[in-house]
Amino acid sequence: MEEQIDSVGKAFVDHYYHLFDNDRPAMSSLYQPTSMLTFEGQKLQGVEDIITKLTQLPLDQCRHVISTVDSQPASVTGGIVVFVSGSLQLPGENHPLQFSQMFHLSPTPQGNFFVLNDIFRLNY
Amino acid sequence: MEEQIDSVGKAFVDHYYHLFDNDRPAMSSLYQPTSMLTFEGQKLQGVEDIITKLTQLPLDQCRHVISTVDSQPASVTGGIVVFVSGSLQLPGENHPLQFSQMFHLSPTPQGNFFVLNDIFRLNY
Repeated sequence: MEEQIDSVGKAFVDHYYHLFDNDRPAMSSLYQPTSMLTFEGQKLQGVEDIITKLTQLPLDQCRHVISTVDSQPASVTGGIVVFVSGSLQLPGENHPLQFSQMFHLSPTPQGNFFVLNDIFRLNY
Repeated sequence: MEEQIDSVGKAFVDHYYHLFDNDRPAMSSLYQPTSMLTFEGQKLQGVEDIITKLTQLPLDQCRHVISTVDSQPASVTGGIVVFVSGSLQLPGENHPLQFSQMFHLSPTPQGNFFVLNDIFRLNY
């Protein structure tokens, strides 16, 4: 069970940042109307507002490099919390930006997960 | 509702780090048998194991300084996710350690919250 949670967390994280770095509009598949994103303190809710925010970030050709992924079961209802630390490499910048991000993944009736909670902070 | 969530998150964070810095054994009041802590990748579950870990950390006279607290409702069942960034000042050390930590607070039948999920990472 514990290994399964870790596998789901890591697979989600790989998928999330792969889409972010390569096809940000496709990240709409990860969110639902109840999803919340707090990005550097700015609160957004729902697929449209979240994707608008994410696609408008000036992060073209950025690359996320993941340092740690910690996952735990979030409840008896099958949710998972995932905590990520890593760095964000921007083109032409020598110094990557350190960040931390947490996700609360909630199960769908179809057996997948969507992002219910998403909180992102740069680490200064 | 949103302001209430923020207030609960901030009040919890103040309480948590106040206990950590002043009376670590009393943090047992924050956890329950289903609680999980992942501390720098080490997984612990249950009040006793979590408090043993926390009280054995070589952080006497440390002081947590909080930089940001972001909170969101975690589900329709009344949970809250809280994401914290800050620094850890150790006595005799000039350079504070940066950290990030997330909590998933779950409501109790008595109308309080306990820490269901707790994940801590230093930011290198």
